Amino acid sequence: MRPICFLSDFGLADDFVGTCRGVIFRIAPEVRVIDLTHSVPSFGIRAGAELLEHATRYMPEDTVYLAVVDPGVGTSRREIALETESGAMMVGPDNGLLMPAAASLGGVSRAACLTNDGLHVKPVSSTFHGRDVFSPVAAYLASGTEFGEVGDPVDVEDLTGLDLPDDEMGEGDIRAQIMDVDRFGNARLSIREEGCGLRYGEKLALDVGDGDMEISYVCTFGSATSGELILVPDSHWRLSVAINKGNAARALALEVGSKVTLRRKDD
Amino acid sequence: MRPICFLSDFGLADDFVGTCRGVIFRIAPEVRVIDLTHSVPSFGIRAGAELLEHATRYMPEDTVYLAVVDPGVGTSRREIALETESGAMMVGPDNGLLMPAAASLGGVSRAACLTNDGLHVKPVSSTFHGRDVFSPVAAYLASGTEFGEVGDPVDVEDLTGLDLPDDEMGEGDIRAQIMDVDRFGNARLSIREEGCGLRYGEKLALDVGDGDMEISYVCTFGSATSGELILVPDSHWRLSVAINKGNAARALALEVGSKVTLRRKDD
Amino acid sequence: MRPICFLSDFGLADDFVGTCRGVIFRIAPEVRVIDLTHSVPSFGIRAGAELLEHATRYMPEDTVYLAVVDPGVGTSRREIALETESGAMMVGPDNGLLMPAAASLGGVSRAACLTNDGLHVKPVSSTFHGRDVFSPVAAYLASGTEFGEVGDPVDVEDLTGLDLPDDEMGEGDIRAQIMDVDRFGNARLSIREEGCGLRYGEKLALDVGDGDMEISYVCTFGSATSGELILVPDSHWRLSVAINKGNAARALALEVGSKVTLRRKDD
Repeated sequence: MRPICFLSDFGLADDFVGTCRGVIFRIAPEVRVIDLTHSVPSFGIRAGAELLEHATRYMPEDTVYLAVVDPGVGTSRREIALETESGAMMVGPDNGLLMPAAASLGGVSRAACLTNDGLHVKPVSSTFHGRDVFSPVAAYLASGTEFGEVGDPVDVEDLTGLDLPDDEMGEGDIRAQIMDVDRFGNARLSIREEGCGLRYGEKLALDVGDGDMEISYVCTFGSATSGELILVPDSHWRLSVAINKGNAARALALEVGSKVTLRRKDD
Repeated sequence: MRPICFLSDFGLADDFVGTCRGVIFRIAPEVRVIDLTHSVPSFGIRAGAELLEHATRYMPEDTVYLAVVDPGVGTSRREIALETESGAMMVGPDNGLLMPAAASLGGVSRAACLTNDGLHVKPVSSTFHGRDVFSPVAAYLASGTEFGEVGDPVDVEDLTGLDLPDDEMGEGDIRAQIMDVDRFGNARLSIREEGCGLRYGEKLALDVGDGDMEISYVCTFGSATSGELILVPDSHWRLSVAINKGNAARALALEVGSKVTLRRKDD
Repeated sequence: MRPICFLSDFGLADDFVGTCRGVIFRIAPEVRVIDLTHSVPSFGIRAGAELLEHATRYMPEDTVYLAVVDPGVGTSRREIALETESGAMMVGPDNGLLMPAAASLGGVSRAACLTNDGLHVKPVSSTFHGRDVFSPVAAYLASGTEFGEVGDPVDVEDLTGLDLPDDEMGEGDIRAQIMDVDRFGNARLSIREEGCGLRYGEKLALDVGDGDMEISYVCTFGSATSGELILVPDSHWRLSVAINKGNAARALALEVGSKVTLRRKDD
């Protein structure tokens, strides 16, 4: 029995997640469900994709990822399952949500459209495929149903792609995007800590559109003085812009999707 | 071992739910707990009853429903367990909360008052029977304790009833109540999709007390134009009043409990 | 396999808790995780300690407590595991968080610093030891790893202590602190119901710094009239100051940490 890692934008204020759990346990009474988070911003495909990709570092190898951020429910967007080179499987809408995680799981080895409605909960509603299609298919895959049973094969080339923004390492400039702003006002950049080429203690110039500000690359918040503008590795192994004991997003008007440039100073 | 489906109005800001889980796992270490939702409005017996009734469509057949929305805790209201015709069991206060779900599970075959305090956690507090009475009894039933052990039998006729509002299908008028308003401002009506007799695309007159407005019955949000007032099937298989990309509850001052009338137009 | 009782200040808006769950299930696929709460106020060591201590009354005896409220992450504060006289184990930062619970579990029999990094998730981040250190160690202990394997022994005398405020029972005065204020405005005092020596119906004088107000000690809210100022046992077996159907914290400007005095009246 594989575990199911469940991510959605359903929130916890309603019974959506609980009903999906009922569907899963009815099919697979012994399955483990690992709730990654249900607080993805509504319809936030990119935010969900980044969370899911990050989670692949920490989940069991044989996980079935059940991911539902699905603004297109009720339209003709496809419902898909993926088998990855690492052995993990994924179930969700074909809107790009699954793709960065699939890449970090070694890439897609097989893809299928969820056309076998013998695996769905009937009647299938027009608004809640999380409950009626994705959850039962994930439960069947977790409990050993053959991947080929979920529906018609899809050409991997035909899947809807999604590239998470990544940093561009220039001759001295690093161009990046803001991927997320947390409740403390820290802004997660697309820059990965690994390979960023910066040294702790190094001073850089940060340009968010209004000219240069000095920013220090530090190892932890504890290495900065109060009110200092810092670049710091975060829990997702990316770099965040933060103000020690302050709110960087508010102070600098940072928003998800904004572009920023970091310039290395001459030594 | 039966699974436990747990619904309450405890919220997730405190340790109430977590403490109940501790009590359950101490008695039944192998049990599955399916959290339906803990965000029922405080003391919202009707809202909780509707959620629980709806959930019965999706939960495993042998579920023990543990439901705690209990404004009368500390008064003389009874604490009960129910055995239903479908084989599922229920545990909660005798305030009507369990009754619509019991009906949808085929009706009550046996009822008992939780008078066997050998199954309770001691000392029993005066304010938190969810932890001290309902959770342990649900755990014992899930792990195979005989239904008759929970306490003295109660005559099914003596249970406190609760009728969820239902639609009245008149000669052309449908009278209904608003059962719930979600965070998007969509108002769930008591009208069930099944048997409503409407056709997709049909125009109706909606009267919420201020005269008639035209409303369209559509299959999905995607079939409406922006700002259009629509009647649309929701995830609970009832009809909701909504404004596509807008907030119907705010625009029309809709509130839980309000009565609405829908009039079919002449063909 | 021991169950894990998990408390943190991570909240549910992010993927922190979900990622820790992934780490745990990768190491211990069969473990039960009992989420006590993840809504401890940020960096609220005392609040977390009180919740954890209270939970020990209700959790399974062989529980591994995983508790992460860790303002010192990234500094030199130690990471520890405790074995208690009751057989339960605990994992968390050495900042006092675990100590009241350890005392209620019979006291610490062995303590160790988490210096065996063979049990950690690599690379270990500087900000999220909940995921990289505490969760995997808890998972290993839950699945049978010897306590001695987690790292170097620590002298129990060297652990960072934390005393929860307790009542001082004077010649007629009871001095106490406010430990918590809930969302209804009820203020939990440090006074334990057990041994408080009060009788239901007794009138006392309450002084919160502005002179005496009459307050009644009652068994339940149901025993008070609307708007009455009452002292009432709460779900944690402590006494709370409350106004029946009102908000005591707002009316009396009560705050966590404030000192209050209760005076018994002459009979």
